[in-house]
Amino acid sequence: MSIAQKEILDLNRFDAASVQGLPPALAGQVARRQASFGASSVLFFEQPIDMVRAEGAYLYDDAGRRYLDVYNNVPSVGHCHPRVVEAIARQAGQLNIHTRYLNQVVDAYAEDLLSRFPAPLSNVVMTCTGSESNDLAMRIARIVTGAEGFIVTEAAYHGNTALVTEISPSSLRKRKPAPFVAVVPAPQARDGLDVAEGFAASVENAIAELQARGIGTAALIVDTIFSSDGVFADPPGFLQMAAALVHRAGGLLIADEVQPGFGRTGGGLWGFERHGITPDIVTMGKPMGNGFPMGGVVTRPDFLKQFCEETGYFNTFGGNPVAAAAGHAVLKVLDEEGLIDRSRAVGDYFRRSLQALMAEHAEIGAVRGAGLFIGLDFIAPATGHPDTAIATWVINQLRQKGILIGAAGKYGATLKIRPPLCFSKADVDVFAGALADCLKAR
Amino acid sequence: MSIAQKEILDLNRFDAASVQGLPPALAGQVARRQASFGASSVLFFEQPIDMVRAEGAYLYDDAGRRYLDVYNNVPSVGHCHPRVVEAIARQAGQLNIHTRYLNQVVDAYAEDLLSRFPAPLSNVVMTCTGSESNDLAMRIARIVTGAEGFIVTEAAYHGNTALVTEISPSSLRKRKPAPFVAVVPAPQARDGLDVAEGFAASVENAIAELQARGIGTAALIVDTIFSSDGVFADPPGFLQMAAALVHRAGGLLIADEVQPGFGRTGGGLWGFERHGITPDIVTMGKPMGNGFPMGGVVTRPDFLKQFCEETGYFNTFGGNPVAAAAGHAVLKVLDEEGLIDRSRAVGDYFRRSLQALMAEHAEIGAVRGAGLFIGLDFIAPATGHPDTAIATWVINQLRQKGILIGAAGKYGATLKIRPPLCFSKADVDVFAGALADCLKAR
Repeated sequence: MSIAQKEILDLNRFDAASVQGLPPALAGQVARRQASFGASSVLFFEQPIDMVRAEGAYLYDDAGRRYLDVYNNVPSVGHCHPRVVEAIARQAGQLNIHTRYLNQVVDAYAEDLLSRFPAPLSNVVMTCTGSESNDLAMRIARIVTGAEGFIVTEAAYHGNTALVTEISPSSLRKRKPAPFVAVVPAPQARDGLDVAEGFAASVENAIAELQARGIGTAALIVDTIFSSDGVFADPPGFLQMAAALVHRAGGLLIADEVQPGFGRTGGGLWGFERHGITPDIVTMGKPMGNGFPMGGVVTRPDFLKQFCEETGYFNTFGGNPVAAAAGHAVLKVLDEEGLIDRSRAVGDYFRRSLQALMAEHAEIGAVRGAGLFIGLDFIAPATGHPDTAIATWVINQLRQKGILIGAAGKYGATLKIRPPLCFSKADVDVFAGALADCLKAR
Repeated sequence: MSIAQKEILDLNRFDAASVQGLPPALAGQVARRQASFGASSVLFFEQPIDMVRAEGAYLYDDAGRRYLDVYNNVPSVGHCHPRVVEAIARQAGQLNIHTRYLNQVVDAYAEDLLSRFPAPLSNVVMTCTGSESNDLAMRIARIVTGAEGFIVTEAAYHGNTALVTEISPSSLRKRKPAPFVAVVPAPQARDGLDVAEGFAASVENAIAELQARGIGTAALIVDTIFSSDGVFADPPGFLQMAAALVHRAGGLLIADEVQPGFGRTGGGLWGFERHGITPDIVTMGKPMGNGFPMGGVVTRPDFLKQFCEETGYFNTFGGNPVAAAAGHAVLKVLDEEGLIDRSRAVGDYFRRSLQALMAEHAEIGAVRGAGLFIGLDFIAPATGHPDTAIATWVINQLRQKGILIGAAGKYGATLKIRPPLCFSKADVDVFAGALADCLKAR
């Protein structure tokens, strides 16, 4: 069994049994956390960090030590961006209420957001999280298609509700996905097929697999950069063949933009744009409010109408004016600071730097990605197989050097590199230099 | 079919077909909202309101007109309470990150919150919404009991995820609840049984009904003041018999405190306290952050451990330091402003005022509640039957008089009275006077 199937959520998790080995003050803080959060407490690193403040691409711990953030994709326009903070503070002091009243702040944001989607995607439902967004998207897909089945990649993570957990194989610890779920490998060239053909062949098999169980295909749902699978971005356009197959089978394409969305891939605001496709439903979350809890579902008016005729849906906090103010500030910062272009330029430089390292270090098996979303595979040089131990060791070494990074992928052997979009080339140099030092010291 | 079963979420909903009858500027604003939000747009009142700002128990529209808020239970310590706004603004500018790092703001809040629960409820999972909380609570109950079935009241609303919608009969428009759900009437004395006995008898039937379908009872889940059912609070303690029956059947008691929690009932912080029971799982949402999107699940460490061994759970925004700062400010304001006592005192005065009106107006069939959560039934004087038309008319009349109120209950004939806890006796007089004027003018 791969790590992904067992416990990808726990990659790089602090082991509660190790609390005795920590400095006493830190051990006390960890014990305090565990007393309140119990078994649900997940802390990063062999030596957890007590964070106090953050700014731009940096976080600072309780001793004032600075950490370069190469991992956290929620504060996407930079930690505590003053424009977003100001928008939240101002609106929180003015009005914070649900969408059953009109409010111009909310309407202006919805219009700006929707103007950034292709036709016919012209309606939005505001939620509070990516999980709520994917939960709703799945229900819309079921009602629109009359089918129950979903196709997902094998190490996918789409969220934490009961329904969405079923299409998040990486969350299931003791059992297989439910019968309405068909799992496909991450997109990769194989058996003489290129990436597009290989992924389409997998999706075709999945449709047949569901059909054999008497289940129709409601949707193929993909994170458009396959974050949890280990970051698969190239070649742009490889999703087209699979999308066409799903449509032919009567299913929808749900683009989960919770991780790739809002400019991270450097090829437009949305990951699906790089593929030249128009999804039927798009879901958003994490970076949407730069940390303010908000998410959304964008779809066609006819689909939304069909759903609403079947089931009442209302989200108390979704679309509140504070969320709208935060979300609108994020869009404005993305525009005014040119963060999509920056993501592409700094991301290109980042990948080139890592590829240069790859030439020198046999432990680096591949460098993939788009914009500031990069996957770096560690392999055992002797066998070429994924090497989780190196990844875990590197992550904890870098943490000691003041650099925050994490892992992903089926084997947990892929560094998941996704810094705030304000990341600079100098930051890249710091990371690449520290990584080189680690590998030299092995 | 009762209104509750069809469309309780739409009670008092603006009818999109009426847009032509609105003043042109307002019609334009409504059209603007509908263009973005489509079929999911729900606006209050025959004549929707464009809200601009709020303070304490008052909201102000785009023309500067003031509205007394007798309905909105999210901004529970008062709209835009300066202490909560300050906490949000300060923490948003300092650090806003997930719980995989330690953070003292988060730990201090978790400890303060948990100190307000009885043993053995000593672990918390932070979520973003009441829906996420109930979704998680249901999954914990299923894993702990090994059973699948839930017992809910017939007009209950517990949230909007796929799973929680199944135990929210008020959301299902075209179909009955799923087979794993058994529905019971709202608690009322009947057939020679008192309220406790009547509710227990219903729950006993529901357990048997599930059993006849081959389904065990995972939990009885109740909003501890039965908000959507029409507000049923008395006599305190009536839940004990039903809870004992569920426990005897191997099921859990989930107390949904999303609406009654955080002091609203005036009998302690939690609605379940009035009943002298200790639930197995408590869920929180709406007023927890006074509008900042946050929710939580409190339960026993052994239950949480059992759940986490089965399924990974992580909530990206849940327990972020800004939420913790907002939530902690809410607890401090509740303490320092004595809002639980105020809720009881002003609530008692409120019910007495409404009971005095009832003596004069045959359209008022009953006044029920606890603290600042009150249900007022409208009936047709001739028949004594619930009268939805009077409720709808009163709601829209009061809106014209600058007072915000809504409806609930199986027939949508119950005024759901739940103002911010800073509501004053003078505010009560304004509401009672305006309601009297309405009824006199009929």
